[in-house]
Amino acid sequence: MVMKVHGAVISTATMRVFAALYEKDLESEFVPVVLRADGHKKKHFLTLNPFGQVPAFEDGDSKLFGNYSVHCSCTRGTPLVCEGKPMATVGVWMEVEAHQFDPLAVKLQRELVYNPRFGMATDAAVVEENETKLAKVLDVYEARLSQSKYLGCDCFTLADLHHLPALTNLLGTPLRKLFDARPKVSAWAADIMARPAWAKVLAMRNQQ
Amino acid sequence: MVMKVHGAVISTATMRVFAALYEKDLESEFVPVVLRADGHKKKHFLTLNPFGQVPAFEDGDSKLFGNYSVHCSCTRGTPLVCEGKPMATVGVWMEVEAHQFDPLAVKLQRELVYNPRFGMATDAAVVEENETKLAKVLDVYEARLSQSKYLGCDCFTLADLHHLPALTNLLGTPLRKLFDARPKVSAWAADIMARPAWAKVLAMRNQQ
Repeated sequence: MVMKVHGAVISTATMRVFAALYEKDLESEFVPVVLRADGHKKKHFLTLNPFGQVPAFEDGDSKLFGNYSVHCSCTRGTPLVCEGKPMATVGVWMEVEAHQFDPLAVKLQRELVYNPRFGMATDAAVVEENETKLAKVLDVYEARLSQSKYLGCDCFTLADLHHLPALTNLLGTPLRKLFDARPKVSAWAADIMARPAWAKVLAMRNQQ
Repeated sequence: MVMKVHGAVISTATMRVFAALYEKDLESEFVPVVLRADGHKKKHFLTLNPFGQVPAFEDGDSKLFGNYSVHCSCTRGTPLVCEGKPMATVGVWMEVEAHQFDPLAVKLQRELVYNPRFGMATDAAVVEENETKLAKVLDVYEARLSQSKYLGCDCFTLADLHHLPALTNLLGTPLRKLFDARPKVSAWAADIMARPAWAKVLAMRNQQ
C-alpha cells in the first residue's frame, strides 16, 4: 500500500514533500485538499493533523503530518544526506533554511506571489524590510557555496531540497536580482532547480 | 578533546543543548558568550556562526551551530528517540514544538519573563493573543498525551526535551494555569522537568 499525501500544490510544504518522494523514487498517492473550501479545517483532515495544516500523511495505520522529507530514512533513490559524514552539518543547514531563509521567503512570497495572484495589494514596506534581510542571508550562502558545492556538503541533500519551492517562486519575481547578483548562489539555484525530481513536481503543479 | 559550546544560560536554545548533552552523558566545555556586550556579534563568534546567534559549537575541526541535540546520533546515555520505531513520529512532534509551541512560547516568555527582568513593560494584548493560541495547542497535547505517555511515543525523546526551557520559564508565570487545567499536560510537564539531566542544566544556570 502506498503512502497517501493529503496536500495542495499551492502549498510549498506539500511541494517539498513531493520533491523528496520523487528524489527517493517512492510511490505515493496525492489526495488534493481544497484550501479555498477550508478542506484543511474539516473533521476528516483534523483526524490526520489536529493543527489543520497541509500536508498530512497516511502510511498504513500511521497518521503523520509536517515535513515528511526530514524523517524519510529509506535507502532508495538519492541519499539526501552527506554520505560518510555526520548528519550534523546537513542538519545545521536545514536549520538555516528553516530559521533564516524560510521566514523571510514566506513573507516575500505572500507579498509578491500570492497577494497579486488573489487580487490583493502588495505591501512595499514589508517587501523592502524582508528583501534587505534576505540579501544578508544570501551573502552567507554565497560564502558557504564558495567552500562547498552544496549547502550541507559536496552533494545534494535535504538542506538544498528544502529551498526548492520558495526559490522557484522568488525567482519569478523582481527579487531574482538578489540571486543574479551572487554567482555561487545563482549557479546553485540553477543546479538544484534542474533536478528531474523537481521537474516532476512542477509538472504535477501545472496539471492541477 | 571535548566539544566546546559557545552560548548563554539565558538562551533557551543553549539550555536545550545542555539538556541533550547531559541526557547523552557527553562531556563538553561551556564558553559563555556575553549577549549584553554583543559577544554573539563579534568577529570571532561570527566565524563560528555567521548568523550571530547562540549556541555555536567547536567539535575538533568542525564548526557547527543551531540545535545540536537534533543531530546527535551517538549511542551513549538516554536514546532520545523511540527505540524500535521509525524516527517519523518523533519528528512530527519535534516539528509541532518548533512550529506550533515555540513561536508562541518565545513571545510569551519575552512579555512575561524577559521584559519584567530587564525593567521593560509587558504588552497585555500580546499576552492575551498568544495565551489563547497556546491554550489551543495544549488542548492538542492533552489529547496526544491521553494516547501516549510522552509526545513522540511511550518513552522520553527529543520531542519532549525541546520543550524544557520554555516550559520551565512559563510555569513560573501566571500562565501556569493553562498547564494546571490540563491533567495529562501537567503530569507530563512535572515528569520531564524532574529528569536529573534537566536539574543539572538548572544548577548550571543558577551558578552563572
